[in-house]
Amino acid sequence: MRIDDNFYMKLAIDEAWKYQLLTYPNPAVGCVVVNNGEPLAIEAHKSAGESHAEVNALKAAYLKKNPNSPLKAISDPFKIHEFLKENHNGFFRDCTVYVTLEPCAHIGKTPSCATLLCELKPSKVIIAHEDMNKEASGGAQRLKEAQIEVSIGCMKKEAYELLYPFIKWCEGNFTFFKMAQTLNGTIDGGRISSNQAQAYVHTLRDKLDLLAIGGNTVRTDQPTLDARYVAGRAPNVLIYSRNKVFDKKIPLFYIPNREVIISDNIEDIKQYKLVMIEGGYSLLNELQDVVDYFIMIVSPTMKSGFNGVEGLDINFDIIHENYIGSDKIIYLKKKTSF
Amino acid sequence: MRIDDNFYMKLAIDEAWKYQLLTYPNPAVGCVVVNNGEPLAIEAHKSAGESHAEVNALKAAYLKKNPNSPLKAISDPFKIHEFLKENHNGFFRDCTVYVTLEPCAHIGKTPSCATLLCELKPSKVIIAHEDMNKEASGGAQRLKEAQIEVSIGCMKKEAYELLYPFIKWCEGNFTFFKMAQTLNGTIDGGRISSNQAQAYVHTLRDKLDLLAIGGNTVRTDQPTLDARYVAGRAPNVLIYSRNKVFDKKIPLFYIPNREVIISDNIEDIKQYKLVMIEGGYSLLNELQDVVDYFIMIVSPTMKSGFNGVEGLDINFDIIHENYIGSDKIIYLKKKTSF
Repeated sequence: MRIDDNFYMKLAIDEAWKYQLLTYPNPAVGCVVVNNGEPLAIEAHKSAGESHAEVNALKAAYLKKNPNSPLKAISDPFKIHEFLKENHNGFFRDCTVYVTLEPCAHIGKTPSCATLLCELKPSKVIIAHEDMNKEASGGAQRLKEAQIEVSIGCMKKEAYELLYPFIKWCEGNFTFFKMAQTLNGTIDGGRISSNQAQAYVHTLRDKLDLLAIGGNTVRTDQPTLDARYVAGRAPNVLIYSRNKVFDKKIPLFYIPNREVIISDNIEDIKQYKLVMIEGGYSLLNELQDVVDYFIMIVSPTMKSGFNGVEGLDINFDIIHENYIGSDKIIYLKKKTSF
Repeated sequence: MRIDDNFYMKLAIDEAWKYQLLTYPNPAVGCVVVNNGEPLAIEAHKSAGESHAEVNALKAAYLKKNPNSPLKAISDPFKIHEFLKENHNGFFRDCTVYVTLEPCAHIGKTPSCATLLCELKPSKVIIAHEDMNKEASGGAQRLKEAQIEVSIGCMKKEAYELLYPFIKWCEGNFTFFKMAQTLNGTIDGGRISSNQAQAYVHTLRDKLDLLAIGGNTVRTDQPTLDARYVAGRAPNVLIYSRNKVFDKKIPLFYIPNREVIISDNIEDIKQYKLVMIEGGYSLLNELQDVVDYFIMIVSPTMKSGFNGVEGLDINFDIIHENYIGSDKIIYLKKKTSF
């Protein structure tokens, strides 16, 4: 196996994927700090408002060699910046920093990563994908001006797939379809996912601008569609249905501060920045062309049951995979060319 | 993410899995050489008769720092041993060697890895799983006698899963069930797997002691069951069927040097060391308790079709996953406790 820039960048990309969508409205970003070939830190941005990937990685790298430093107790991004600026003492001089997205050049909820890197002066910063967000871009230029060697484009395709949800929601809308199934594709027969997978779905719901669901599911299952497993915010709901008549006494209509829309106009979905559609095969088949990502949560079981609809015929690319406990999560995109 | 012994051992384990079953009758083994935290080599044993994982990794590590060494052109395991013994010049002094299986202490088709390590004197050898094969074991003891620090048990559970097929076939029989399906579990409707996945199946067939298949598949599909995509050896075939009447004019009966057995006695399968069963859900359901591994090759498509049999209800542990081109390969074991 080749141990080269791609090897280290892949570690950064895989780490970032663990927090895909959970960083909303920020992008998922990973960062690896390497000193003479030794990976000192493999970190990611975990949640909006918390430290960026670079800051997490620079902190972890410093602590790897200075395990008793007071930095250990500091979690405020501004204070980490401050501590590292004052105490780095050339620590990063021989380091290469791999980052999946161009370090930000603007001060938002957290200070600018490009500014921090310019002060810490690693010998090289390797960037997978440039920042296309005008407000935050310019980081690479700032690094070059500080005499840091910069390269852009290592594993760019993989970094683009990682960045894709962010690109889409910055443009106005990112819609993903979530489905839970067994290894042999069955989705009926009671609860499929583990507790951990269900908590993950509630974590996603807590982030959403809109949760869309089919009318039949509402009528049959009467789901509450909240985020109670993580004590999260219940998202607004769009019931995708031609028939607009529903029993308004079911729980989903009684969540405080929740808007419920009943519509069969896909444009109503596209008005929201981050949308999850929860459904089965018939909704998936109907909406396949308006969905950016398909997220399949797969329980490692085989059970007899329902696994499709007539005429189902979709080709996918597998974009990434992870585990949630013993369940798998597979990120798919509909194939556009053959 | 923690960068510790487990991190490096996982690199070795994942690399070894790429050659799982392909090393038959040898075990799949991976090895990582690390110098002051820098991974110099991540290698595996690839095929019986070729270099062991340790030799591949020690060679790659040496070449990483000496890219123009004549070692580059040497592939014979005995000659690699010889070159490294003569030219290492203390190169491995500060290295830690991670290996998924205790280095062998005996000279077989290739020289003893323990002897080589004793000469190259890395500072530490970290072993995931001890060798239970009496003929080859004793390696750790030899290393200790050469004043090399040795530890055993890092990621032992994961290393056991990697070693499991080897343990089973050393005991007399390892049987795995192979099935190709779509993401939603359908197995009918013509060819499912990609060319690359089919070539992989033929590579497996070339290694087998026995290929077992259900009688209905033979009657309906009339498969040849050879290894023509890789110009390999066609395995002996056991047709698992209560009804012993078959049309002996179909191609599978006409392969030179092939034995064809027709039997419904599972003990006939267990007489062979490495057995693959190819089939669908009904055979899988029937034979679930005699199968050691289930290997699912999953094409990233969804199609309407057949995905099970009545009463199918099996819980699995996912042991490992890989890709074969754009298809996935998932290694499953039936769950034994809940």
